This record gives sequence, structure tokens and C-alpha cells, in this order.
Amino acid sequence: MTVVVGYVPTREGRAALRRAAQECRLRSAKLIVVSSARGGRDMQAEDARRFQELLEQVHVDLEGAGIEHEERQFVRGNEPAEDLIEVANETDADFIVIGLRRRTPVGKLLLGSNAQRILLEANCPVLAVKADEND
Amino acid sequence: MTVVVGYVPTREGRAALRRAAQECRLRSAKLIVVSSARGGRDMQAEDARRFQELLEQVHVDLEGAGIEHEERQFVRGNEPAEDLIEVANETDADFIVIGLRRRTPVGKLLLGSNAQRILLEANCPVLAVKADEND
Repeated sequence: MTVVVGYVPTREGRAALRRAAQECRLRSAKLIVVSSARGGRDMQAEDARRFQELLEQVHVDLEGAGIEHEERQFVRGNEPAEDLIEVANETDADFIVIGLRRRTPVGKLLLGSNAQRILLEANCPVLAVKADEND
Repeated sequence: MTVVVGYVPTREGRAALRRAAQECRLRSAKLIVVSSARGGRDMQAEDARRFQELLEQVHVDLEGAGIEHEERQFVRGNEPAEDLIEVANETDADFIVIGLRRRTPVGKLLLGSNAQRILLEANCPVLAVKADEND
């Protein structure tokens, strides 16, 4: 059994990763950490290097926590939603975990198109998580 | 610890309830089944009676499955999102479970305003579940 999480280096991304790791521990599932980069000319060398470092830190943290895991990095230029749904289908995931921005008291925040797409198109359940003060 | 589920008598509603019950069993949490009715002139006596019967069946099924649970029925005319979020806050819920319609191959299905509101405004994570052929 797997839990699939879309990793992005934001507060919401860290919240999603933390919750996904907890859920994996609870149900003895394997965590699949998916990250999507556009690649090509859009991605600066420095950004790519920095993102690699963050992913390595994720790996080290999950190792330290004893969570069975696997990282899958895509640089195909797909929308992140496509990569996530594909990995979830392929690994017959129990669910996908995504991070959502917290709605601010002023102004309406709409769900991003990527989040909507994952929620609507995924064949498995989707757990939507918000950041808290620890993230 | 509680898991809060919004119950509606549809395929998606049944899928959400089933999954919420599984998650409660996994984490020894109490299930809170929330249903919101408009009440007043909008609700026909026959509909109200039928909905009561369905809720009683939910109660019997959960008893039979040995899931600790509680039903909360609101007839205040609130949007279901408001009632769900309020109960989740009050019981410090681990998460809320909602049912979502499956996207059809033809035509774009947008997330309903109620689902968006729960996803964006809830203080806890939200697990969005779709119906499958068993529901």
C-alpha cells in the first residue's frame, strides 16, 4: 500500500509531507514523494540545485523517521497534477496528500487549478492539508 | 479523537461514510455523522421522514460494525459547509471526510461551492472521496 504526496518547498508542501508521513506510519504504507519540475530553459541551474538539496533533506528526514519511502522526480514539463495522478494510479495508492493555502480572512481564495484537477481527476481519495504554525 | 463526515444520501455520501468509518477503525477515533437539512417550508414531510429512515439505517450499520459514533442533525438552514466546519472545530476533529462527484469524461466538472468552502475554510485536513461501483 502506498500514500502519494506532491512535494513543493512551501509551508503547505511541508505540512502535506508531514501529514503523509504520519499516515504512512499509521497504516504501514510506503510513502511516494513526487516532485515535478518544468525542466529545460524555465529552470535556472541554481534553482535546480537548491531543489535537489531540499529533496535530499526530505530523504534524510524520512530515513531518520523510519518511514519507508521513495522519491520520484519528474522533469517532463507536465502539470504536477498529471504526474501525481499517474503515480497514484500506477502504485494503486490508498490516497494522495496535497497542501492547500489557508483562506485569508479578507478576500476569497479560490482553489488553484492544480488542486481542483487532482481532487476531481484522481481515482483515489485526496487528503487536503493546510499549513500550521510549525510549517 | 474524532473524524467528522457530512452525510448525504447519494453515492458519494455513502462512499464518504464508508471511508470515514474505516479511518475511525484504523485510528480508534469516534465518528461524527453530520447532516444538514434546510427545514421549514422547503422540506416536505415525506422527504423528512425518508431522510430520518436513512439516518437510522446509518446508525444501525455503524452499531453493527462496532464503530463508536454520534449523529448530529441540523435543521437551522445553514449551508452544510458551516455545520461541518463548526462540528469539526468543536470536536477538534482529526479530519473531515466529504464525498465528491467523479469527473465525467465529457465536460468539465467544477468543484461545488460547498466542497470548495469546506476545503478552504476547515481548520483541519479534508479527505475527499469519490464513489465507486459498490456505492
